[in-house]
Amino acid sequence: MPKIVDHARRREEIAALTVRVIRKEGSGGATVRRIATEGGFSIGVLGHYFRDKDDLVAFAFRWMADQTFKELDAAVAHAEPGLGRLRAALEFMVPAPRAPTFMGVWVSLWDGALKNPALAKVHGDYYARWRRHLRRHLSEAVRRGEVPRPRALGDTVELLSAGIDGIWIASTFEPTRLPPRRRRALVAQMLAAVAGVR
Amino acid sequence: MPKIVDHARRREEIAALTVRVIRKEGSGGATVRRIATEGGFSIGVLGHYFRDKDDLVAFAFRWMADQTFKELDAAVAHAEPGLGRLRAALEFMVPAPRAPTFMGVWVSLWDGALKNPALAKVHGDYYARWRRHLRRHLSEAVRRGEVPRPRALGDTVELLSAGIDGIWIASTFEPTRLPPRRRRALVAQMLAAVAGVR
Repeated sequence: MPKIVDHARRREEIAALTVRVIRKEGSGGATVRRIATEGGFSIGVLGHYFRDKDDLVAFAFRWMADQTFKELDAAVAHAEPGLGRLRAALEFMVPAPRAPTFMGVWVSLWDGALKNPALAKVHGDYYARWRRHLRRHLSEAVRRGEVPRPRALGDTVELLSAGIDGIWIASTFEPTRLPPRRRRALVAQMLAAVAGVR
Repeated sequence: MPKIVDHARRREEIAALTVRVIRKEGSGGATVRRIATEGGFSIGVLGHYFRDKDDLVAFAFRWMADQTFKELDAAVAHAEPGLGRLRAALEFMVPAPRAPTFMGVWVSLWDGALKNPALAKVHGDYYARWRRHLRRHLSEAVRRGEVPRPRALGDTVELLSAGIDGIWIASTFEPTRLPPRRRRALVAQMLAAVAGVR
C-alpha cells in the first residue's frame, strides 16, 4: 500500500517542518501560511494531511515527543539501573544552554491546550508517559535500597516532574543565571530533597 | 499635566484590555488587530501608546504582575510571619481550578521571550521579585526556628519556585487529575521536602 505509506511519511515530514518553523518563528509567527510557504506547497495541500493548525500542532508535538523519549531511553541506558537512571532522566530533561530549545513547540501546544481539549490531552499524554518513565526508575531505586520507600510513589513522581519543569523553564529563559553547573546542582538537590536520597 | 496622566491611564486601560483578549483568544488569537477591534479603536491609535505587539505584551504582563503581587501581599498578610506566610505564598501561586487562568498571558510572554531579550527581561524581573518574596518569608521562618537553616538560602528559594511552577502548570492543564486537595497536599509535601520542614 504505497499510497498509505506515503501519506504517513508525508505527515511526518510536515511535522518535522512545523517544529522547525515554530523554533524559528515562535508560536505566534508559525502560521499555517508560513509553514506551507516554508515547505514549498499551498495551504490547500496541508489540508490533505491535517484538519487545522491545532491538529498539525498536536501531530508535530507527538512526533517531537517520540523523538525525545527515544533519546531519553538512549541517554539513561548508559547509567546504572535505579537511582543512576533516575538522575540521568532528570538531567536529560533540563537541556544544555546551547541545545536547540523546543520551548516554542511547547508554547504552541499550551496556547492551543487552553482552548482545545484535544491539545490538552496531548499535553496530558506526554506527562503520563514521563511519569511512567520516572516511576520505573524510582521503583527500581527503592527495590535496590538506594532511596527510602516513599509514602506514596505517585506523589514523589509528581514532585520530581514538577521540580524539573520549573528548573527547565528557568534554564530556558534565564540561561546565564542558571549555567550548567548550577543547573546540575539544583537537579541533584531537588532529587535528594524530594526522594530523600542521603 | 492632565495630558501625561491621561496617557498613563490609557496605557493601563489598554493593558487590562490586552489581558482580557489574550485570556479569551489565546496568545495566537490576540493579534494587535483583534485587541484594537475589542477596544473600539484603530490600530493606528495603539501605535500612540505602544511600539509593537511585544511592547504591548511586556506592558500588559507587568501590569498583571503588579496586580498579582498586590493580591499576594494581601493573601499572606492573614498568615503568621515566617513559615505560615511562606506556605500561604506558595499556595497562592497555584490557583484554584475555577479561578481565571492567566496562563495565556504567560504563554504570550514566553512566545515573545524566546526571540526578544526585552521580553526575556520581563520574565526575569518577575521571577526575581517572586524569589525576593519567598526569601523574605524563608529567612523569617529560619530566624524563628521553624525550618532548619539551609546550606544555601538561594538554592532553597530556587527549588521552591521551580516546584511551584511545575505544580502550577500541571494544575492548569490537568485540573481534574490535580483537584484542589491533592494540589494543596503536593505544595505542602514540596515545601516539607525542599525546606526540610518536619
